[in-house]
Amino acid sequence: MAGFHPIKTPEDAVIKQQQGPMQILNPNIDIEDEDVLYHIALSNRSHDLKDMFQDVKFVCFGGSPSRMKKFAEFMVNELKYKLVAGQSLCNIAGGSDRYVLYKVGPVLSVSHGMGIPSLSIIFHEIVKLLFHAGSSDVMFFRIGTSGGLGVEPGTVIITEEAVDGILRPYMEVATLGMMLQYPAALDQTVLKELVASSSPDDHFETISGKTMCTYDFYEGQGRLDGAFCDYKKSDKMAFLKRIHERGVRNIEMESLCFAAYCHRAGIKSAVICVTLLDRLHGDQISTPHDIMEEWQSRPQIIVSRYIKSKLGII
Amino acid sequence: MAGFHPIKTPEDAVIKQQQGPMQILNPNIDIEDEDVLYHIALSNRSHDLKDMFQDVKFVCFGGSPSRMKKFAEFMVNELKYKLVAGQSLCNIAGGSDRYVLYKVGPVLSVSHGMGIPSLSIIFHEIVKLLFHAGSSDVMFFRIGTSGGLGVEPGTVIITEEAVDGILRPYMEVATLGMMLQYPAALDQTVLKELVASSSPDDHFETISGKTMCTYDFYEGQGRLDGAFCDYKKSDKMAFLKRIHERGVRNIEMESLCFAAYCHRAGIKSAVICVTLLDRLHGDQISTPHDIMEEWQSRPQIIVSRYIKSKLGII
Repeated sequence: MAGFHPIKTPEDAVIKQQQGPMQILNPNIDIEDEDVLYHIALSNRSHDLKDMFQDVKFVCFGGSPSRMKKFAEFMVNELKYKLVAGQSLCNIAGGSDRYVLYKVGPVLSVSHGMGIPSLSIIFHEIVKLLFHAGSSDVMFFRIGTSGGLGVEPGTVIITEEAVDGILRPYMEVATLGMMLQYPAALDQTVLKELVASSSPDDHFETISGKTMCTYDFYEGQGRLDGAFCDYKKSDKMAFLKRIHERGVRNIEMESLCFAAYCHRAGIKSAVICVTLLDRLHGDQISTPHDIMEEWQSRPQIIVSRYIKSKLGII
Repeated sequence: MAGFHPIKTPEDAVIKQQQGPMQILNPNIDIEDEDVLYHIALSNRSHDLKDMFQDVKFVCFGGSPSRMKKFAEFMVNELKYKLVAGQSLCNIAGGSDRYVLYKVGPVLSVSHGMGIPSLSIIFHEIVKLLFHAGSSDVMFFRIGTSGGLGVEPGTVIITEEAVDGILRPYMEVATLGMMLQYPAALDQTVLKELVASSSPDDHFETISGKTMCTYDFYEGQGRLDGAFCDYKKSDKMAFLKRIHERGVRNIEMESLCFAAYCHRAGIKSAVICVTLLDRLHGDQISTPHDIMEEWQSRPQIIVSRYIKSKLGII
């Protein structure tokens, strides 16, 4: 799995899915030694990870800690999950203030903060957590927010392929002085199943499209309203139209790493984001709070339907 | 200020400091229009930013929200700042859960999360905040944690120059299809003043050195304990020794952007990090919590001394 991975199209990327217990691509991790998962304040010595996490089947990542708490509460209702009398959900990673981590039966709800580096840290630590726990056949989802391109705000986009800020479909990781490239390919079967799980009764659209993933929210996404801006509105519009013509339907800040790492680890995954605005019509996010809240629940609804169908819950 | 900035050494970078009110390098921001600072839930219409922030002179950024709250509380004591009867510090950005923002007289204490993209967002929004507020002669500091190289854990490192994961002293920003480069140069006068503000009575060392800034905590920093690792311990050690020989004394995940953006904006700044371990001797952070807490207060002590000297407080 190591080294340089040139890739031209998503079809070139053969997705080798893990089967059975979670494996990790690191021969140095010995289950007998202590392994401190520093940013979530857990370790295989301080906690019985097998007892706590072996039954996990679905990990849902999202940027905001409070949104991921709400998602966990939502899943309690959706799965009709019975909390023990006198107990309520709590943040398992409460020993650190970097991320939050909630568990509802087979579902983990995890915050990843903003941007690729922040997601990267929690991704490594969640994969190691599930490895120590001996969890098997686990799927990963990112449920997030994004800027849309040529779609009605509030639309849910499921990512066909993630590309970087200059449309390259791979993530670069500087590794011991080399720049290694990992293709950001996503499982097309899961994608199709998720799109199919939308309902004609939904009061929002669910479509698939390419997702551009940037390292910066302002200049990286061609915004005119940052602290720096040395291009004109016409330059911005020309760029956004060009990437729209090439299939990009939304822009966010984590999908490239999420797709590349899941592909590399052989974990089935999908990226499901709602769009908060149409970038062809503006840059500022000024939609009222209650409408935004409702929009942010839409990727949760789609993923919850998928999880319930896999668990056989109608 | 726009475009390609080739740079060979820090001396090549002429630091043009701002004088007077905070300026921004974006002609599109009109003080008359509404400007929503989305990720801190403030706007120049919903809040009287001039009234709230015009007196700000020092902005201190750090990764962890709880650490930045502690820093604000620390500065209340250090500045002998009198809180109004019946009032306590509160998070000004409480309308969002992305960042925290505390104010103690002329000092702002801001969390930036983990990694360059997360820092980048809050940097843009704080500069715009201070622009709308009409603040002047403001200095920026990053007070953080890092992995050390060949130095005693607990040592405070003040960054001479920030470099990326393959030792390039600039930050790349994908902008409308171009990869633009911005030098990550820091003010050498502030650096020297900060090093000089350490005391022989301190029970820790304060030194200057180069800081490597990476986009990934595990492979990006040559760790052997991530979910992925396709190199050997000998490869890791050879790399770390090579960068140590070239002056790198610590590794973290934000200095490159912080230095590049401050330089670009003409804001006087410095990066002050404590080291939590010596990477030449290991990867895992397993120091007891109370010792770690004391170490994390050290950059705060150095910066507080500097701020007090500038304010004429002995």
